[in-house]
This record gives sequence, C-alpha cells and structure tokens, in this order.
Amino acid sequence: MAKAETLRRAPLVCVLHALAAGDVGSEALTAACLSAIERDAALHAWTHVDADGALAAACASDARRAAGQPLGRLDGVPLAIKDNLDVAGLPTTLGLPARRARVAQEDAFTVARLRGAGAVLLGKTGMDELGLGVSGRNPHFGDVGNPALPDRVAGGSSAGAAAAVAAGHAIAALCSDTLGSARIPAAFCGVVALKPTFAELSSRGLGAALRRLDCPSLIARDVQDLAPLLQTLAGYDAADPRSRRRRVPLAPPDWAPGTLRAGVVSDLAALGASQDVVRGFDAAVQRAAPVFGETRPVALDIAALDVAATRRAALLLMEAEILAAHGADIAGASQRVLEMLAFAQKKSASDFARADRRLDAHVVRVRRMFEDVDVLLLPTVPVPPPLRAAAEPANLADFTALASLAGCPALSLPLPDGIGLQLVGLPGSDLRLLELGEVLRAVIEAQVET
Amino acid sequence: MAKAETLRRAPLVCVLHALAAGDVGSEALTAACLSAIERDAALHAWTHVDADGALAAACASDARRAAGQPLGRLDGVPLAIKDNLDVAGLPTTLGLPARRARVAQEDAFTVARLRGAGAVLLGKTGMDELGLGVSGRNPHFGDVGNPALPDRVAGGSSAGAAAAVAAGHAIAALCSDTLGSARIPAAFCGVVALKPTFAELSSRGLGAALRRLDCPSLIARDVQDLAPLLQTLAGYDAADPRSRRRRVPLAPPDWAPGTLRAGVVSDLAALGASQDVVRGFDAAVQRAAPVFGETRPVALDIAALDVAATRRAALLLMEAEILAAHGADIAGASQRVLEMLAFAQKKSASDFARADRRLDAHVVRVRRMFEDVDVLLLPTVPVPPPLRAAAEPANLADFTALASLAGCPALSLPLPDGIGLQLVGLPGSDLRLLELGEVLRAVIEAQVET
Repeated sequence: MAKAETLRRAPLVCVLHALAAGDVGSEALTAACLSAIERDAALHAWTHVDADGALAAACASDARRAAGQPLGRLDGVPLAIKDNLDVAGLPTTLGLPARRARVAQEDAFTVARLRGAGAVLLGKTGMDELGLGVSGRNPHFGDVGNPALPDRVAGGSSAGAAAAVAAGHAIAALCSDTLGSARIPAAFCGVVALKPTFAELSSRGLGAALRRLDCPSLIARDVQDLAPLLQTLAGYDAADPRSRRRRVPLAPPDWAPGTLRAGVVSDLAALGASQDVVRGFDAAVQRAAPVFGETRPVALDIAALDVAATRRAALLLMEAEILAAHGADIAGASQRVLEMLAFAQKKSASDFARADRRLDAHVVRVRRMFEDVDVLLLPTVPVPPPLRAAAEPANLADFTALASLAGCPALSLPLPDGIGLQLVGLPGSDLRLLELGEVLRAVIEAQVET
Repeated sequence: MAKAETLRRAPLVCVLHALAAGDVGSEALTAACLSAIERDAALHAWTHVDADGALAAACASDARRAAGQPLGRLDGVPLAIKDNLDVAGLPTTLGLPARRARVAQEDAFTVARLRGAGAVLLGKTGMDELGLGVSGRNPHFGDVGNPALPDRVAGGSSAGAAAAVAAGHAIAALCSDTLGSARIPAAFCGVVALKPTFAELSSRGLGAALRRLDCPSLIARDVQDLAPLLQTLAGYDAADPRSRRRRVPLAPPDWAPGTLRAGVVSDLAALGASQDVVRGFDAAVQRAAPVFGETRPVALDIAALDVAATRRAALLLMEAEILAAHGADIAGASQRVLEMLAFAQKKSASDFARADRRLDAHVVRVRRMFEDVDVLLLPTVPVPPPLRAAAEPANLADFTALASLAGCPALSLPLPDGIGLQLVGLPGSDLRLLELGEVLRAVIEAQVET
C-alpha cells in the first residue's frame, strides 16, 4: 500500500515498470487513487467517479498480468478522462447541469484505444462549461482547485484533468485542447501537456467546440509519459471526417537537438506577457540554449497577427458551433455562457464564413514563422495563474491559440510558479517535439538544482 | 498551318510530341487556336482573350525550343484558364459584370505553375456567375454553347473551359470543381475532367466558392493528358491554409487493374438517374467489367444519404462564403443569384455550423462505401445534357457532389450523347485513377468500334 501511495504520484513510465515487475498491482494502485480522490473532494477535480467499474477493471488487469497475458501497453494504469469525451455507461456533461443524465452509449475513439490497451478508467474530470473558459470555474460542479498553487485558479478548460494528475488522482489524463484547454491548466498546475498535430487523433466522441481546431490531448506528470500515450491513441478513423491516414511516424525522425534551429519569440511584453512570465521564460531559454544548434530571436509582427481580432473570430466560430451541436442542452448554463452564445445567435452565416477566413489568414502567418526555424519557443500563458478571487484576463489563451490555429503540435513543460514553457513544431513533428522536451527538461532541471 | 489546325484538336500528349519533334511551332499552334476562338465567338466560351500576350509567349517558347532550352514540360502548349483563377494582368470576373475591371496582380499558384512550365495562356473562359450554377448560362457574358451537342447546354460552372477544349480552342484547361463544376461540363461536352484529391493542388488565387471543397481541376481531350498536367500543378503551398505536404505519389502505386475491386452503384434510378443515363452507363460498365479483378454492385442507402438535404447544406455554405468573400461585387448579378444570396443572408452563424456538420456526416457515409471497394463507378450526371431552352434540373450535381464531399479524386470519361462515366477513388489515389481511366477508355472505345 505504501508503494501504491508513492506510485500514484509517479510518472507513467515508472508505473508501467512497477506493474510489469509485479512491484504493485493495479487494484492497489487504483484503490490508492480512489482514496486520494475522495480525500481531495474539495478540489472539485471530478464530475463523476466510477469506483466500482475502475476496481473491477483493475482486478481483471491483475488477473491478466498474473496469467502472463497483459492486454496492452497500459494494462492496469488508472487514468482520468475529461468530461467532454464519451465513456460508455458514464454521463458526458460538458460541464452542463442539463447533461448530468446523458449517459454515453459508446466510448470515444480515443477512450476505446485506452480501454483496448488495458487502462483503468477512473471517471470523468471537470471542465469549464462547454469548454467556453480557461479558468476551471464551474458554478454547477464547483470551481476546480489548483493542487500546486492553492490560492490560484487551475486553468481550463481541462481543469479537472490537470488537477487530477497534479494531485496524484490518476497517472495521466486524456482531455482536449482547442485553443489551449490542455496546455493552460497543465502550466498552471505544474504538469506537462501535449496538443498533438490536428487530426492525428480521431475526435469521434469528443463534444464539439471548434471542430477545425478540436484535438484530443494529453496531460501527464512527465514529458516521457506522453509518447506511449500518443502512440496508443494515434491512428486513422474512417468515421472521423477530419481523420487522415497516420502521419506521425512511429519512430522519431532522424534528428539531433544539436542541429535544430530554435526560434525564441522575442517581443513577449508587447504581446501581453507579464514581467514574471518574461523573467521565468528567459531564464529557462538561457539554460536550454546550449541544447540547440542555433537559437535566434523571432519577432512576431504584432500588428499583422492582430491577436485580439483572431481571438474574437475563433470565439464566434466556437460559439456558433456549440449552438449547432449542443444548443438543446444549454438550459441552466451560467449567465456568462448564455451571453456568449446569445452574441453568436445574432451573427449571420456569412459572418461565420468571414471569421473562418480570418483564421485561414492566421494559419498562413504562423506557417511563415517556421520558414527559418524548426521549433518555436514561447511561454504557454502570457501571465501567471490568476488568484482564485480575481477576474479572468482576456488573453490567457493568446499564446496557445497561436499553435492551435495552424494545426501545429505543441508541448507545455512546467517551470516554477505556474509558468509554462511551450514548444511548437510543424504539423507531424510530434515525436520530435517530445524527444526535444525530454532533453530540455533534463537540462533545465539539472541546472536549477546545481 | 494544316498541321497546327489538326493539332489544336489533338490530345495534349500528341501536341507535346509534335512540339518536341519540331513538327509544329508554338506560334503557329497558338495562332490556330486564336483563329478558332474568333471564328467561334458565338460559343461564348471566353470572357477575355489575351491574343497579344499569348502570341508573344508562343514566340518566346519557339525561341527557347530552337535554342534547345525548353522551359519545362508544357513549353509552348496553348491552354485556357477559367475566369475564377487569377492570371496576372488579366481580369478575374467570376462571371460578374462588376468585376470586369478587376485586374489580378499575381498569378494563382496553379497558373504560376503552368506558366513556369512554359505554357501559353490564351485567356479566361466563361462560367456561371460566381460558380452558382451548372448550366453555363451567363446573362452578362452570354450563355456558353456546347460544341458537341449544339442544342444542349454546355454544363457548368466551368462551361467555357469544357467548350474551349471540345472546340479545339485550347489543348486543355485549368478550371475548378467544387460540387461538379469541371466534371459536369466535361461530360456534357464529350471531354475528360479530373477533380484531384482535395487540397493536393493549392487553391491560392482561386475565387472562393466553398473552401472545404474547392479544387483547382483539369479538363482535357484525352485521359492521358491529365497526368502531366496534374504533376505540373501538384505541390505544397505554405500560403494555402489547406495545402498539405504532397501525398499524390509521383509514380503510380503498385497495382494492376486485374486486382481492383470495382463498386458499381446499382440503385441509379432511385437516385434520380434517367433511363438514357442508366442504359449508357450499364453498357459501358459491361464492357469495362473484364478489366477489374472483381465488380460488385454497391447499393447506396438513399434515405441515409439524404442527397437533397446535403445539397441544400452545401449550397448554404457556398452562398454564405461567397457573401463573405465577394459580397462587394454582386451589384448587377442576375436576379437568380441575388435571390440565392439573399436566402443565405437570412441564415445564422449556427445554421452555417449545422450545415457544415451535415457535410461531415456525409463524408463518413461516403468513406464507408469504400470499405469493400477500391474504386466506385457511377454516371457523372444523373440526366443527359438539358436542352438550351429547358429549365435547369435541381439534381445535376448530385452524382459529382458525392465524391467532392468526401475529398475523393474523381475522373469523368465521356460516353456517347453527353453522358459521363465517373470513377471515384480514395483520397490520394489520383494517379491510380488516371491509369485505370486509360485502360477503361481503351477497352470501352475498342469494343464500341468493333
């Protein structure tokens, strides 16, 4: 039990080793997670916990391991699922009270992949209503707390996923990221997140927000944990209209960090970054620089990017799509969300098309940044996690949306004080980005310790 | 000159051979095309002819060939460009009177590719206003005639492109296809058309109609002409937000027609096909059958497909996007087009999102048809070309839209009487489809002749 209590807070790669070696059983590990969830109920990380189902799955996993026949790579690992991904037999609330009784008939594609690999699904984690927020506040299920910085918000919309991983309720979490929903709470709660290349993971069974950007995404405790999860989840899904034949290579392409050209976004303050964030980011970049073949400053053309207008365009698309997909379920939603949706209700079909074209223009501008660099470095969020009592700044997703809009994979690594270091690569470079993240994390942490 | 007069009506592959062998010069060939265009002015195939520019380009090509330094694969070949693709220095009217003075500053990506390969650009060909029609009727530039069947409409919206190729005004044409705009007029005018896999050709510089479907496309006299054109045009364009790294392999994949499973759509009458079309199609399929490893009937689930509702959804998207992209230019458009756009003006942003979701569902249904077949065979248009005086049937694009909606490449081969045989493959199978088309055309024509 002491071992299980330690392992529930350990990286996935360590848990996999312990399970395979017989150092811990899935039932003990799952029970430790369930106890922690119960103890931390005030964190509001979960909307629904399936204790019986999880324990039964854990026992079945232990039996398979005892028989020498594990089901797959993740056999027995307790995981969290964000409450906008369908898990058969459990409700998918999207953070709305009206959907508490909406039980999913089928697993989402990505959930089925996890289950197929033997994972133990603990339940569903909390989120901002309909994903329309980045703070983790939810008037129906309770505001999600930040286990790393208790006086700060958890970030959102995948608030519960990040909090659950940070608090050791689950080894990792499957969530989603449209404009930053995985990366923002991961940075605030001190864990890692990967938003993969758009459409590499099927979004079948993921509640729609902004479908040209919606990505099933991952939150974990260590950057090394992300590759086995990504490899389990990736694959072509004929039933997802945006899914394409796999482009993420299973083995990292031929590269070495020492040959990479890193572009470091240089005009952070002008883009709205706070002094604290600039200081934390600069210190990390300075420690990371020797890893690369070359680092060069990349000045974003702020006027051309017109971040605020692009943000408004993306929000309009999101609100209109949410009305189309979930309009029947919004009764009882908060005044804030109802007002956002009412704004979209007044917009015309050609307003939608115009906003969509604005996003297109942004895609091209972001691609241009990659003409001379292999990977772009910038903070995950322009400001540190706001205090729980403070208002939500409008620009929390500005730095994450940049990658989302261009379909790029993006990795957020934790720095001290809820600040995140974001690495953005070209579409399809997901595994390269993960390997680079491992190197960077080692370098940054090693030098912090000395 | 007699040689040029023959070659202006010959397949591109023959013209390339004659130019390379010195049997004809580009200037003579271009002059023959320009004379034919002038003679056939009543066909209304062209909105703008650049005689001086074309002759100058032809002379330059002849000089390059004389010096043993042809510029590229298409050096000296006179081509037509649909009037929704930008050609630097010429107007891009989209079939609208208000745009007669809108001179393009830059070539469209695909136009630049043709020019870079040495092609001679004769001018711009006529289209239905804004691409919102499939008959070739245009009250501002004149209804486009059908050179193959003079009492019938040319089909649209790439009416002028098909008529120009059929009449020997140009060796081939670069046009576009959103829901059938290249394939429909090609079938009606007795020539071939290829709509490539979505996003394989950059749509930069193509006037937007429905951007999730808009494809630069090709019309030519012979199916063998399409591969060299496709190979010239394909390529990644960082400035087109939908462009992806090349997926069309330059060499056809390892396959043989004798191993292919052909799905023959079997419930044509229930889908709205006329008796004449069913008869012509069945006869062609019967002659083609020995080519395949296997042919099997494919019954479309007509209720599930809900073709009429999908058509309405696609039209709404198209109208809303046209309002967003070209709303400032519609003064003077016909009553018919103004009414279509007024309909969209009343629709909301979430109506747009809903229509977009309906198209998504259709993508998945069409993909399912390919679970057991490698290529799908169906007529290009459900009915023969309507009489010029008749009203435009609503279902002309139903059989072409099927492939468009799923992003599939589709080839239309001419059968007698303005009927088309359509081959639809999975995304990325463009060259396979062309090779199969060559085999089929040989078999079908050989047996017709005996």
